[in-house]
Amino acid sequence: SQEFSSSPTKAGRRSLSRSISQSSTDSYSSAASYTDSSDDETSPREKTQVNSNGSTDFCVKNIKQAEFGRREIEIAEQDMSALLSLRKRAQSEKPLAGAKIVGCTHITAQTAVLIETLVALGAQCRWTACNIYSTQNEVAAALSETGVAVFAWKGESEDDFWWCIDRCVNTEGWQPNMILDDGGDLTHWMYKKYPNVFKKIRGIVEESVTGVHRLYQLSKAGKLCVPAINVNDSVTKQKFDNLYCCRESILDGLKRTTDVMFGGKQVVICGYGEVGKGCCAALKALGAVVYVTEIDPICALQACMDGFRVVKLNEIIRLVDVIITCTGNKNVVTRDQLDRMKNGSIVCNMGHSNTEIDVASLRTPELTWERVRSQVDHIIWPDGKRVILLAEGRLLNLSCSTVPTFVLSITATTQALALIELYNAPEGRYNQDVYLLPKKMDEYVASLHLATFDAHLTELTDEQAKYLGLNKNGPFKPNYYRYKASKSFLCKI
Amino acid sequence: SQEFSSSPTKAGRRSLSRSISQSSTDSYSSAASYTDSSDDETSPREKTQVNSNGSTDFCVKNIKQAEFGRREIEIAEQDMSALLSLRKRAQSEKPLAGAKIVGCTHITAQTAVLIETLVALGAQCRWTACNIYSTQNEVAAALSETGVAVFAWKGESEDDFWWCIDRCVNTEGWQPNMILDDGGDLTHWMYKKYPNVFKKIRGIVEESVTGVHRLYQLSKAGKLCVPAINVNDSVTKQKFDNLYCCRESILDGLKRTTDVMFGGKQVVICGYGEVGKGCCAALKALGAVVYVTEIDPICALQACMDGFRVVKLNEIIRLVDVIITCTGNKNVVTRDQLDRMKNGSIVCNMGHSNTEIDVASLRTPELTWERVRSQVDHIIWPDGKRVILLAEGRLLNLSCSTVPTFVLSITATTQALALIELYNAPEGRYNQDVYLLPKKMDEYVASLHLATFDAHLTELTDEQAKYLGLNKNGPFKPNYYRYKASKSFLCKI
Amino acid sequence: SQEFSSSPTKAGRRSLSRSISQSSTDSYSSAASYTDSSDDETSPREKTQVNSNGSTDFCVKNIKQAEFGRREIEIAEQDMSALLSLRKRAQSEKPLAGAKIVGCTHITAQTAVLIETLVALGAQCRWTACNIYSTQNEVAAALSETGVAVFAWKGESEDDFWWCIDRCVNTEGWQPNMILDDGGDLTHWMYKKYPNVFKKIRGIVEESVTGVHRLYQLSKAGKLCVPAINVNDSVTKQKFDNLYCCRESILDGLKRTTDVMFGGKQVVICGYGEVGKGCCAALKALGAVVYVTEIDPICALQACMDGFRVVKLNEIIRLVDVIITCTGNKNVVTRDQLDRMKNGSIVCNMGHSNTEIDVASLRTPELTWERVRSQVDHIIWPDGKRVILLAEGRLLNLSCSTVPTFVLSITATTQALALIELYNAPEGRYNQDVYLLPKKMDEYVASLHLATFDAHLTELTDEQAKYLGLNKNGPFKPNYYRYKASKSFLCKI
Amino acid sequence: SQEFSSSPTKAGRRSLSRSISQSSTDSYSSAASYTDSSDDETSPREKTQVNSNGSTDFCVKNIKQAEFGRREIEIAEQDMSALLSLRKRAQSEKPLAGAKIVGCTHITAQTAVLIETLVALGAQCRWTACNIYSTQNEVAAALSETGVAVFAWKGESEDDFWWCIDRCVNTEGWQPNMILDDGGDLTHWMYKKYPNVFKKIRGIVEESVTGVHRLYQLSKAGKLCVPAINVNDSVTKQKFDNLYCCRESILDGLKRTTDVMFGGKQVVICGYGEVGKGCCAALKALGAVVYVTEIDPICALQACMDGFRVVKLNEIIRLVDVIITCTGNKNVVTRDQLDRMKNGSIVCNMGHSNTEIDVASLRTPELTWERVRSQVDHIIWPDGKRVILLAEGRLLNLSCSTVPTFVLSITATTQALALIELYNAPEGRYNQDVYLLPKKMDEYVASLHLATFDAHLTELTDEQAKYLGLNKNGPFKPNYYRYKASKSFLCKI
Repeated sequence: SQEFSSSPTKAGRRSLSRSISQSSTDSYSSAASYTDSSDDETSPREKTQVNSNGSTDFCVKNIKQAEFGRREIEIAEQDMSALLSLRKRAQSEKPLAGAKIVGCTHITAQTAVLIETLVALGAQCRWTACNIYSTQNEVAAALSETGVAVFAWKGESEDDFWWCIDRCVNTEGWQPNMILDDGGDLTHWMYKKYPNVFKKIRGIVEESVTGVHRLYQLSKAGKLCVPAINVNDSVTKQKFDNLYCCRESILDGLKRTTDVMFGGKQVVICGYGEVGKGCCAALKALGAVVYVTEIDPICALQACMDGFRVVKLNEIIRLVDVIITCTGNKNVVTRDQLDRMKNGSIVCNMGHSNTEIDVASLRTPELTWERVRSQVDHIIWPDGKRVILLAEGRLLNLSCSTVPTFVLSITATTQALALIELYNAPEGRYNQDVYLLPKKMDEYVASLHLATFDAHLTELTDEQAKYLGLNKNGPFKPNYYRYKASKSFLCKI
Repeated sequence: SQEFSSSPTKAGRRSLSRSISQSSTDSYSSAASYTDSSDDETSPREKTQVNSNGSTDFCVKNIKQAEFGRREIEIAEQDMSALLSLRKRAQSEKPLAGAKIVGCTHITAQTAVLIETLVALGAQCRWTACNIYSTQNEVAAALSETGVAVFAWKGESEDDFWWCIDRCVNTEGWQPNMILDDGGDLTHWMYKKYPNVFKKIRGIVEESVTGVHRLYQLSKAGKLCVPAINVNDSVTKQKFDNLYCCRESILDGLKRTTDVMFGGKQVVICGYGEVGKGCCAALKALGAVVYVTEIDPICALQACMDGFRVVKLNEIIRLVDVIITCTGNKNVVTRDQLDRMKNGSIVCNMGHSNTEIDVASLRTPELTWERVRSQVDHIIWPDGKRVILLAEGRLLNLSCSTVPTFVLSITATTQALALIELYNAPEGRYNQDVYLLPKKMDEYVASLHLATFDAHLTELTDEQAKYLGLNKNGPFKPNYYRYKASKSFLCKI
Repeated sequence: SQEFSSSPTKAGRRSLSRSISQSSTDSYSSAASYTDSSDDETSPREKTQVNSNGSTDFCVKNIKQAEFGRREIEIAEQDMSALLSLRKRAQSEKPLAGAKIVGCTHITAQTAVLIETLVALGAQCRWTACNIYSTQNEVAAALSETGVAVFAWKGESEDDFWWCIDRCVNTEGWQPNMILDDGGDLTHWMYKKYPNVFKKIRGIVEESVTGVHRLYQLSKAGKLCVPAINVNDSVTKQKFDNLYCCRESILDGLKRTTDVMFGGKQVVICGYGEVGKGCCAALKALGAVVYVTEIDPICALQACMDGFRVVKLNEIIRLVDVIITCTGNKNVVTRDQLDRMKNGSIVCNMGHSNTEIDVASLRTPELTWERVRSQVDHIIWPDGKRVILLAEGRLLNLSCSTVPTFVLSITATTQALALIELYNAPEGRYNQDVYLLPKKMDEYVASLHLATFDAHLTELTDEQAKYLGLNKNGPFKPNYYRYKASKSFLCKI
Repeated sequence: SQEFSSSPTKAGRRSLSRSISQSSTDSYSSAASYTDSSDDETSPREKTQVNSNGSTDFCVKNIKQAEFGRREIEIAEQDMSALLSLRKRAQSEKPLAGAKIVGCTHITAQTAVLIETLVALGAQCRWTACNIYSTQNEVAAALSETGVAVFAWKGESEDDFWWCIDRCVNTEGWQPNMILDDGGDLTHWMYKKYPNVFKKIRGIVEESVTGVHRLYQLSKAGKLCVPAINVNDSVTKQKFDNLYCCRESILDGLKRTTDVMFGGKQVVICGYGEVGKGCCAALKALGAVVYVTEIDPICALQACMDGFRVVKLNEIIRLVDVIITCTGNKNVVTRDQLDRMKNGSIVCNMGHSNTEIDVASLRTPELTWERVRSQVDHIIWPDGKRVILLAEGRLLNLSCSTVPTFVLSITATTQALALIELYNAPEGRYNQDVYLLPKKMDEYVASLHLATFDAHLTELTDEQAKYLGLNKNGPFKPNYYRYKASKSFLCKI
């Protein structure tokens, strides 16, 4: 299909185009990776495997790893009590009875909890991976063992990738009526290859910036014949993926790669959107001296009021110990600026894509690259100066830190609710367009997660509800109140 | 006019209905008040005064106070460099040449800087006060001395109030074509009394929640025949009035009234909107243990992530030292809860109106009220327990602290730009409706204020602007990106 | 007496030499001062007053104000529960039975609670004021009404001051055996005038830096014939007077005088001792950009690790909005530097004495001083530049903010315990020297104040105590572990 | 030798007894460990190796790794500019000319920078490892290649350990006159085996708590015939090892082991000494709700003022998500309390020894231990509840995080200065006792490290120095002003 041909490799393209929560599970697989030592080089496509119920309708690395995968799923469940609580509440109603869901997401312990929740609510599921590297083989085995038809393994080829998607969709006697997608590949495969099946889909839930972008394009072109919910832009997901997650992962990413001491370090954060705000807050709290660069005067004024000097990068480039880009822009740090950085300074990217730092400009003969640790390169100038480049300018928090299961729980719960909403919505509520999750559901996702913090909501009295003109059960904010994506994402959609 | 008759007194009603920056100048007058010791009891309406140019077209307390008022204005100018910079940039163009502006605002040193800016840009101005108590007499004198027709003094009667408005509007040989209003009284007076003049107005700029609410009502009723700009909801104004200002004024208000030590105090903040967030951040930073109550699960989840326990008030009512309401709701603290508070605990309101604490319920025979300082009452229970009530439950930061001139500068600059925009807009840009300030102007206000902080904006390169799909000079955010008013305001509009 | 002759006035000298908690009650009197409107110009020395028990052994402004003073004392008691709890615990034992205490301190509601505690524990007390301005007349009346012989009023002359001291000490049929002093004037008066009475004193408790300095001088000279306890340097008092109090009072002092907005302000703190640390923490928390100057590399390194740029004042003098001195040094801000400050910048002192800012250098003909509020002067340069000087360079927190009653409770409790210790110590425990409060008593003062915060101490098990080699009831730190006074104080002692 | 016989293994004993900076390099070796893949099982003692100068006076794993080790040393030098600057300043004077130093420390890139500094200052050095696991083989090779006689490799046996020490000391034609020790093993070996050599030693510099303790014991017993400097208790070292390092390493340790999200977590910190203060500050800053337990009322009062609830562990044991011990005490978390913890809660130790959590009590048949990652055990109760135990209760920051090179630079610089001081001190300055580093040298170490932060010290004018009674070059604090070790250390010494 023409749309996909421009990408050099699946993995390469994807790492640029995903929002945080989607791709970040990549690194999370590390927890389980030590068990995955099988040196079996046989392609799963060439093996015949049978689960203990006698089924062969799956294709994973090694069905025998199911037990270990089950343990990983159980550990993940501990931090996903909101999703389990949704599972419990809705289990008797079976709101997804009759739903036939094809899914294309990262396959990890956390998504396994989601898939098994969907099954518990009545759905039949077939699943494949949205990334050729991110599958936890043991988890895929555990799901296959319990009867979910999973087609995915770590280290797929591009051909394998599309083969797996096709096997999910194109199976005899089973026709999907719901799509859960992360990146839009599954959606577009169906749209192109199986247009008749696609037309009968009751709803699509899409997770990623890229996938949402593709849906909006289809919609604009008048070709989207199915309602879709964009879960990427729901309030809780965005705040967690950006502000709160980055507040923690900037510290984690820097520490794991460089063991740098934060106290007293002079750091410049390029961009004061949600990601930049999170990075600034964390580094300031740990004793760094933080500067901000901004193009937008309103964000700049916020930075001032929050106690950060707003400067141009050139004013302080010779001074700073660390540069962190969070802009969504390109060439925010140029070769000229890298030339002027101090010996031993660190440069990394928390923003949208790997173009924020002009890494390409560093690949010139006079500079020596020395890989000192995984994800850590010393770029050495002819005079011996070293600049430490992390993750080759790709997203630091995807490459060098992990995403807490709690955050993935918010995403997964939102996806589950979106599927339930689309599947059960009365005729006419959703047309052939891209929707945001209704505000009330956003609030419901949030409320399910409050138990984790032992937080107790106050309820309005009848009198107060009347005074405020609100329903006692919410929504408490109008539908138009929602997270405004930072510039980096906005400008793309 | 019928619309106003329900208010018992001008001052009483107003103190409930204004957003912070409007009414807060009340207390600011204290700085100058020590000079205002004239015991002259003659009503200004009965005096004949002449300024040094021979004009009598004004009515103030005492024109001889002009010199002192001039000094106050000069001091205010020091913190309003953004407005002065606008004055300087636009002075040669005279973008308000031909504008005849009637204004009804607080008359303070800060608004004088605004008025004199409008004059410098070419406008003719007539001015009156939107509050019977808030006029700085010396400032009114200084303005009158330089030829602005001011009709206002501190301590007007209600009759004086309307007389002054009428004198502004209804003068021979001068017909206003622009309105700058704060509260909507001037607008409605003209709408009712001088409908023919009103129709020819080119634009209204309205500052207050109340005034904006009235404009929306007129608009809905199809009776608004003039375009209006709502400056109350511009991003910079809202962030400063709520988050940043409250962060400082909660400390100031508590300290000036009670000298309480913040360190170690257990404080509950009811409501985690922008105001609540500001209060929480400040008190946490100074060593208080802060709890939050919320009705909205999304705000509650934010409070959790920011490190605050989310509780129901009843769970901790016996424990806390201070209760601060920031909800916009009513009866958030009930008599029953006040009965259970500790001896010596403090209760106050930073929210929308004086109904958040059920103060009425405290006016019962068994409780003794003891006024221990200005704005500070001890409510004494029969067993000797004292609860300290601040400002009788009215807004603490309006009653007991001041608003920095810098914040008023943001408001004033926004007003000036809105007037320029409406006066110069080409036919068809604005219809007979209520508008928000265009995003680009919001950004311009912000950029003018960056100089105060010696903050330097980064400019996009051509290549970057193209990549982002933005104009190099902004706007950097879409028009729909704007401040979302907190619940308290939303529910009213 | 020769020692005192160098001081131009009592009030003048004292304001320079006191540590915070002593003199800070000056400003606290403002709370009550609105009642003190009697225009009675008669000197109390010329009046004959009788309390309701028929006693005339006191000299106050107006005994009829006793009832109002009683209420002030009751309000103070609310925040001094630790002292009341000590009163309650020791009341039956009467550990001060037989003690005849002469005291010379500020006479405020808070010291009244101390005096009445001493009486409750069995002591007889005669009291006078250590500052000619700081007496709360109503409180003096209330004490006199209940039988404490108080000789003090607001606005004493220097002659009155010594007359009052003399009347305390020199009364027929009553010979003091304990001294509680604040500044050393009472001690030296007795030492010089009544050497035979002085020799029989069982102990002196001294509160102030100055007084402690004088005692050490006497001790070095071999002339101190009485044991003394220096309560100025106890851990809890110092931490509260310096770090925790200044953290709050810097904000309060700046806000009350200038209404300045902290957010975004560039502030330099000269000195990173405890006072500087408190100021830095508070201003950083409220969004100021804070720089530090230091002479001591260890403190400088701490500032770095805490996230502050360490600079020389000259490097940033043109940049900063606020300068705050906390050094104990002199001429830390020179005329040359003041000449280079920005228009509208603020300069003030939180350190040891009024010499930190070279205020004298500003009193030259080319500069105009304009008093714009109480404690606020605009210094105007010939080019119109204004620098805002607070409290004429004297201590900001003494002049322009208040000290929380809780802090005064710590001081008062420490004083009471020191008196009990000295009065009851077995022969030989204390010689004719100056002592610090035993560590265990310091810990006891702290433990009494924990109840205010509902804080619960953990108790060691027998096994743990043995493992740590500690007594289960403390002391938990060795006696040599104690607060190390900041440079400013050290260098003086 | 009898003294050491009680230890089951060298490694086991040591991990309990070292202060942070000593043992923490253990984990740091991981950076280089990936290169150490040689499967050569031959003991270095059985090999004959020659460096490129023909010397065989060393014993390391593989001399051919010297080049790689050199690169590691060069990388370390980047963050040790203070030590290099000392090297440069003192190089021409050769203050250690004639010094023959035997050293027993961790052998890492950072200590290599120290050793090469000593050589540059004129010393001859022989070196061995103080820990059988911590040697970076490549670094040992690089040192040996340049002529330092190193006897150490990773994975020594206990017999190897003493053999290496002996080879350092007992060599023909070379008699040591200085000792640099970390743990006291080298010192005691010489004291016992070579008493005549020991007597001629000019000074000992000891780094560890254990070693210092042994020296004090010798001194008390009158057997210490050599002056020694205790560098463990110098101000800068202690502040960095405890407060500042733990502020960062608590976050790092928790994240690397559990990927836990800090925001909203309820955490109890047992102990509010320097370590506890660091942990509390970091976790609060990242949005955790932090409680403190304390036995000492003074520390408890500080915790209150810093905004933490002070509780007994039992009050909140069912509530908290994370328990962190920082007490130096034993059985601070008991089995009974572990039984009551929530499912999924985390327990770990940042304090003195592995006895703070009663880990032994968890090794009972009804509980299942499941190792889920390196250093992470799930303890599973019969009802399925899991408690996550980190590092089996040993020090989290030694086991699961790294120490920044900057901190090691402070330690190394202090050691170098102590050696210079002892070697050059005039007769009589030091007797046969244990000394702290003179205050002035402490200040010098701090000042050398300021350059890293681009921090600029202010210098006193002559007039100011006179006013303060200080020398312009320091010391600025009296010698008795120094870091007070936290309870955990105090009680042991």
